[in-house]
Amino acid sequence: MQNLQKVNLAEKLALFQDHWHPRIVGDLNGQQVKLVKFQGKFVWHQHDQEDELFYVVRGQFDMEFRDRTVTLNQGEFIIVPRGVEHRPVAHQEVEVMLFEPASVLNTGNVQNELTVAQLESI
Amino acid sequence: MQNLQKVNLAEKLALFQDHWHPRIVGDLNGQQVKLVKFQGKFVWHQHDQEDELFYVVRGQFDMEFRDRTVTLNQGEFIIVPRGVEHRPVAHQEVEVMLFEPASVLNTGNVQNELTVAQLESI
Repeated sequence: MQNLQKVNLAEKLALFQDHWHPRIVGDLNGQQVKLVKFQGKFVWHQHDQEDELFYVVRGQFDMEFRDRTVTLNQGEFIIVPRGVEHRPVAHQEVEVMLFEPASVLNTGNVQNELTVAQLESI
Repeated sequence: MQNLQKVNLAEKLALFQDHWHPRIVGDLNGQQVKLVKFQGKFVWHQHDQEDELFYVVRGQFDMEFRDRTVTLNQGEFIIVPRGVEHRPVAHQEVEVMLFEPASVLNTGNVQNELTVAQLESI
């Protein structure tokens, strides 16, 4: 039968330490589930074709928009609609689960040293 | 600007008490995020076209397959691929977040008293 393994978020998050580098932990319906750790300020960017969900597994971060900031705590998520500029800022390390199409590039319309073009599955 | 409200899972889960009746809490990329409470045994069913993700927010439940059972604890998820028969069984109440296409019917290929055809957004 197909792979029916469960995924334990804490176990997967223990496998890496770097920031702003998402790992793939699930694939379904053309979408992916990713885990990532944020610390510091990311780059302003947007995704023209994809909505993105950010769910806080542990910690807290600010999702900055051009006209407001939304502080996300553990157990909360936000959906950033396609086309909306945003920048995650984490004053301390935060662990985040992402739901988004498999096509998403982490820095969206921007390519810089934070861009991770090829993501691993863990 | 578009709706950029965050969603607090615990606050949303406090809004309903019934079992096996998912509520929609997010829409993105043709997919939906739903919250549901399970208690007892559901019905064996499958989804022919859709993969389904079950993430445990609080509690524990067993995902039964025809050849095995996977016990899911808080902080764990499983992806049930399309076409795979499954039955959630919760010995005590469990709170679950679902991520699946907007087209999913909770009982899949089965229609009975547990079927909820029209889901509310909360």
